[in-house]
Amino acid sequence: MKTRIGIFGYGNLGRGVECAVNKAPDMELAAVFTRRDPASVQIRTQNVPVVHADDILSWKDRIDVLILCGGSAFDLPSQTPLYAKDFNVVDSFDTHANIPEHFAAVDAACAGRQTAVISAGWDPGLFSLTRVYANAVLPDGKDYTFWGRGVSQGHSDAVRRIKGVKNAKQYTVPVDAALEAVRSGETPELTTRQKHTREVFVVAEEGADKEQIVHDIVTLKNYFDEYDTTVNFISEEEFNANHTGMAHGGFVFRSGTTGWDSENRHIIEYSLKLDSNPEFTGSVITAYARAVKKLYDTGVTGCKTVLDIPPALLSAEDPAELRKHLL
Amino acid sequence: MKTRIGIFGYGNLGRGVECAVNKAPDMELAAVFTRRDPASVQIRTQNVPVVHADDILSWKDRIDVLILCGGSAFDLPSQTPLYAKDFNVVDSFDTHANIPEHFAAVDAACAGRQTAVISAGWDPGLFSLTRVYANAVLPDGKDYTFWGRGVSQGHSDAVRRIKGVKNAKQYTVPVDAALEAVRSGETPELTTRQKHTREVFVVAEEGADKEQIVHDIVTLKNYFDEYDTTVNFISEEEFNANHTGMAHGGFVFRSGTTGWDSENRHIIEYSLKLDSNPEFTGSVITAYARAVKKLYDTGVTGCKTVLDIPPALLSAEDPAELRKHLL
Repeated sequence: MKTRIGIFGYGNLGRGVECAVNKAPDMELAAVFTRRDPASVQIRTQNVPVVHADDILSWKDRIDVLILCGGSAFDLPSQTPLYAKDFNVVDSFDTHANIPEHFAAVDAACAGRQTAVISAGWDPGLFSLTRVYANAVLPDGKDYTFWGRGVSQGHSDAVRRIKGVKNAKQYTVPVDAALEAVRSGETPELTTRQKHTREVFVVAEEGADKEQIVHDIVTLKNYFDEYDTTVNFISEEEFNANHTGMAHGGFVFRSGTTGWDSENRHIIEYSLKLDSNPEFTGSVITAYARAVKKLYDTGVTGCKTVLDIPPALLSAEDPAELRKHLL
Repeated sequence: MKTRIGIFGYGNLGRGVECAVNKAPDMELAAVFTRRDPASVQIRTQNVPVVHADDILSWKDRIDVLILCGGSAFDLPSQTPLYAKDFNVVDSFDTHANIPEHFAAVDAACAGRQTAVISAGWDPGLFSLTRVYANAVLPDGKDYTFWGRGVSQGHSDAVRRIKGVKNAKQYTVPVDAALEAVRSGETPELTTRQKHTREVFVVAEEGADKEQIVHDIVTLKNYFDEYDTTVNFISEEEFNANHTGMAHGGFVFRSGTTGWDSENRHIIEYSLKLDSNPEFTGSVITAYARAVKKLYDTGVTGCKTVLDIPPALLSAEDPAELRKHLL
């Protein structure tokens, strides 16, 4: 019997999950849940209902794992603990600083009955795995994480709130020289400014004071003031033609030493180059939904993270096959 | 109480493990076991005995995990199952084709009493982890593994058996153009020859027929005949000065697509650049010895591989700390 998946929230991430579930040989989409009017939500999968969030409890026995596709700022902090009371759940909660609190809330909600995995994306997620493995293997060392080139939703939103800005997109860009220094075996102390630059593309409102907009962006506290930021004014046409993509990526390094006199250096590098951030994140979260089902079936309950999950549980393949072909 | 480690076999890998155990805050070296005369084996750690392999059973209650540091060709196929009868064990068995057989033998030897992890190095090991995670996340895609630049012990040995060769070292070198093609998003079908070249450094015996040596090397079946091989004759002095290092490394890629029409490409890349292959492998195997102890303490027995082990078990840190700092 296939694992019956519910998707909660049908934005970019929900659509990415739908596509990943469709490709999984051992899963089927049972329902999509939305807080909007279900009649207004058009999904891709045939013969699968779109259900209002208010009716979700009636689906309790028809869903094996509920994948929560809301945002980390306003949706998941309340949704994941709420639905973990009645469903096995997985989310991609990505506010690093609040993970311990979120973990505790979801674990309490599971109440020894349900199984949950939180923060299953690429950072946190695959990047975290790399950091933990690399730290365990090289206890003497230094971690570096770089993000980009890719869109930061939070920074784009912040720019859009500035007076005179009609539309905006912000790209986080890792600094090549810093990447190369780490890759070559140096272990520099890098300031925020030395690790990433920020590129902003702005569609200004007619008659807006562009000099003022630039000033307001580059001095914006917590968003741009610690970075070298480039602001480019473009037309709405150019914006729509070139800045609606969702590519992203990044790099994790651990540079460490072994030997009695720390004389041997080792560099571990993991990188992602992603055409579609939501489709890739959706693929990660779907693989962890598979693990949630396997854990639940063997009686393991409570909140878990990617750090607690044996890698083989993510695969649709049999463990003996994995040992034969991928080990 | 610290985890008491036994090291079986004190070659390059055994020395790498000794160093890694020395750096682990939660481990202590209890004994080194050898098939040589123990008096002839000088270890680095103070106040730790070197014990003859014949006396190992008397250490049964004084060792939590025995780390097997022999070779995959002749030592581990018999040693790991033998010692798994009485000890929790971990090895870095790396003959990919024979893993299923080795797994079955070790699992049977554990007999529901001991815990074992096999093939815990970097390939198999960390590279396998990357392949399994990446395949689970991107089911539509292609894997590429490149090794080097680094010494292949098996190929060096093969060259040394050729008539007229006094000493030799063989380096496996990934082909840059192939790496770049994969990295750029192409998914080429690569022949053996297109993925790696082989560089051989030979110290010839006096009066040896060098032309014949080159011919014998480049045509050697299963070792060199499918590769572009460069043979360099060097002096014994140059050999000793420049070719005794143990650096190695490699790359794992998965290049895959998502989207209803597979329209979005994602590239996952993992790479290692290692100054000392045995010290790094020793560090991996030591981290897995930690996991073996934790599994055993929670009643999990039998043979496992890196694919079965939750990442957090490799760390000396508390799971809550890991969630806070590395997730």
